[in-house]
Amino acid sequence: MTVRELAIATKEASRTLAKTPSDKKDRVLRTMAQRIEDEAPRLIAENSKDVEEARAKGLSKVMIDRLTLTPKTISEMAQGMREVAALPDPVGQIVRMWRRPNGLLVGRMRIPLGVVGIIYEARPNVTSDAASLCIKSGNGVILRGGSEAFRSNLAIVQILQEVLREEGLPEACVSMVPTTSREAVAEMLELEGIIDVIIPRGGEDLIRAVVAQSKIPVIKHYKGVCHVFVDASADLDMAEKICVNAKVQRPAVCNAMETLLVHKDVAEKFLPRIAKTLEDFQVELRGCDVTRSILPQVKEAKEEDWYAEYNDLILAVKVVEGLDEAVAHITKYGSEHTDSIVTRDYSNAQRFLQEVNSSVVLVNASTRFSDGFQLGLGAEIGISTTKLHAFGPMGVEELTTTKFVVYGDGQIRE
Amino acid sequence: MTVRELAIATKEASRTLAKTPSDKKDRVLRTMAQRIEDEAPRLIAENSKDVEEARAKGLSKVMIDRLTLTPKTISEMAQGMREVAALPDPVGQIVRMWRRPNGLLVGRMRIPLGVVGIIYEARPNVTSDAASLCIKSGNGVILRGGSEAFRSNLAIVQILQEVLREEGLPEACVSMVPTTSREAVAEMLELEGIIDVIIPRGGEDLIRAVVAQSKIPVIKHYKGVCHVFVDASADLDMAEKICVNAKVQRPAVCNAMETLLVHKDVAEKFLPRIAKTLEDFQVELRGCDVTRSILPQVKEAKEEDWYAEYNDLILAVKVVEGLDEAVAHITKYGSEHTDSIVTRDYSNAQRFLQEVNSSVVLVNASTRFSDGFQLGLGAEIGISTTKLHAFGPMGVEELTTTKFVVYGDGQIRE
Repeated sequence: MTVRELAIATKEASRTLAKTPSDKKDRVLRTMAQRIEDEAPRLIAENSKDVEEARAKGLSKVMIDRLTLTPKTISEMAQGMREVAALPDPVGQIVRMWRRPNGLLVGRMRIPLGVVGIIYEARPNVTSDAASLCIKSGNGVILRGGSEAFRSNLAIVQILQEVLREEGLPEACVSMVPTTSREAVAEMLELEGIIDVIIPRGGEDLIRAVVAQSKIPVIKHYKGVCHVFVDASADLDMAEKICVNAKVQRPAVCNAMETLLVHKDVAEKFLPRIAKTLEDFQVELRGCDVTRSILPQVKEAKEEDWYAEYNDLILAVKVVEGLDEAVAHITKYGSEHTDSIVTRDYSNAQRFLQEVNSSVVLVNASTRFSDGFQLGLGAEIGISTTKLHAFGPMGVEELTTTKFVVYGDGQIRE
Repeated sequence: MTVRELAIATKEASRTLAKTPSDKKDRVLRTMAQRIEDEAPRLIAENSKDVEEARAKGLSKVMIDRLTLTPKTISEMAQGMREVAALPDPVGQIVRMWRRPNGLLVGRMRIPLGVVGIIYEARPNVTSDAASLCIKSGNGVILRGGSEAFRSNLAIVQILQEVLREEGLPEACVSMVPTTSREAVAEMLELEGIIDVIIPRGGEDLIRAVVAQSKIPVIKHYKGVCHVFVDASADLDMAEKICVNAKVQRPAVCNAMETLLVHKDVAEKFLPRIAKTLEDFQVELRGCDVTRSILPQVKEAKEEDWYAEYNDLILAVKVVEGLDEAVAHITKYGSEHTDSIVTRDYSNAQRFLQEVNSSVVLVNASTRFSDGFQLGLGAEIGISTTKLHAFGPMGVEELTTTKFVVYGDGQIRE
């Protein structure tokens, strides 16, 4: 079967899925979760072949960690599917309805996008996450995971398709590109009108390559240069706790803090203590001149540091005059991903929320909350830093669009 | 000034506009409306040069009609701006807000997209429509109208910029590409990251050319192959009224009916009467075999007729077995634009609304209501038949996105 034929089958299947009632979709998802757990030995057996090959190829420990399935990660996958099952069904929701002067009753009803193409790297859990979000939102899905996880992904998809078949749904609702060739991705990205949206998940290189090639709209997120601004009135204990969490809890992810902005009035008090704590966590600081006048041991931050997404235990630090300079810095150097202010000042909190147009803007909370689960969307299918269609973490609602439904009683246009 | 410099100035200006309060934006729009009316003689003088040149070039009467400004069309432009001023401001609206178990208060706030690029043909009224919708929604706009209307558009934009200046807003909020060269369009479509979205308005050729070239997301609408399905239970008087309105009231537009589907149980009764009425309006019919057995004078519809957007007084007619066949026909041949059912059957009405996934689906009303004004969005900036970001007529809300705003009190992620 070519990728095109696969996609056409998925489009066809998506029409059935779009009409499938919520209770049936939820039952299918719960059965899938159970089956994934029951079949853990089969999944681990297939996964171990992938892992073995990855080791032989000399993949990094981080990559191998991401790739490896264990009873715990499998049970987390199943739990994720159950949580998606428990979410409200977005399909068919009337988000608003109003009456026109001529009596027409006009509403907007959520409907699935159609077919979603997911291109991702070596994390097998994305397979079950993406499939469950697409089933829930009534979309067909075409999965194209990294070649390192091919056997693991295939095993997962086979289990999901077994359940679909048993439940009388077309197995093409969840399709997997059956080859690891790069040409298959290129072929996929040509299928405008069959695949409705492409969501690449992975490093910036993968995403740029997909955007450059695709004829299909892509929902993407290049990078996260996230800021925390510690305002003059900040509770410095809170500020320290938030900064450490934002930088250290998981430094390799897109919602980790990359630049710390500190109000000049608290710089002398705050910088020494945060520097000490971050040093305990092996964080390397790179500072502006004012920072270095307070912390002489700190390396100089160069212009490129303000743009940097380190994804590592490195932090750029800048002392600013106040809120205006903080907002201007974020506007110039940020990536419109996630930014946070720590403050006790009401007006500065509100102004920061208004004036920073990043996808997630927080007051007195860690940037690490910029995540579909954490914000309460249920699972997330990805994150968008472009403003079209979705901005920020995307859940099941972002996998739908709305159509206008109009109830009339014979109206014609004059 | 290059197109790139112009776009950068507009991006910069858009940041000011994004922060401008509603009452100021509305005052600016009302002042602009007044000024457009006051300056009618200046507009008509400039416009008459465009019209003269268009006549010399031998442009069609339809094109010249669209191009020509009169005191009446100018007053309609001004009225359009006042209506946009009267709409609710989408910017800053919190569309939903909820509390997380850890106490975080999470909301979604509407914000402008940034800079909107409009590429259109020879209708000067699009200039004021697009500018007012963009100002209302806090977006900068870069206008690139047809070369035939260059002087008219320039005069309109100059008036709008005069008002912006007087009100202390950057005039680059509303920019016009200052040349009629084709290269300028190509340059515009390269400006990913500066222009946030491109909206082409015009014929399918224009739109396809823009999509092929653009690196910026494009919101587009290729064509409207709209259907009316007359069900077995339809009130045939109502059906006739709706069909005539949908076909004849303005046949050249995208929401006019192109194919009539008739339930077999009423075909013998309905087809002769609708054929007679449509013949009075000079509509040419092209029918399926069953249609032609009832109306022998009707030409045969070929396969390509079911896909056709005639934009003319031609109508394809097909007799179907029932709702299922009607929906299947619309799914196969339609353009996901606008489709209507005429019925007295409750269940068929609900099923049609559910199962036809076009951007506008109507019961017992003319397809001609598929329009931003008619559906109650206020003015419309365009119509989208792709499902990403917007689907169907787009008003000011569709010129915004939402960011997440999060109120915390020291939360960190465990």
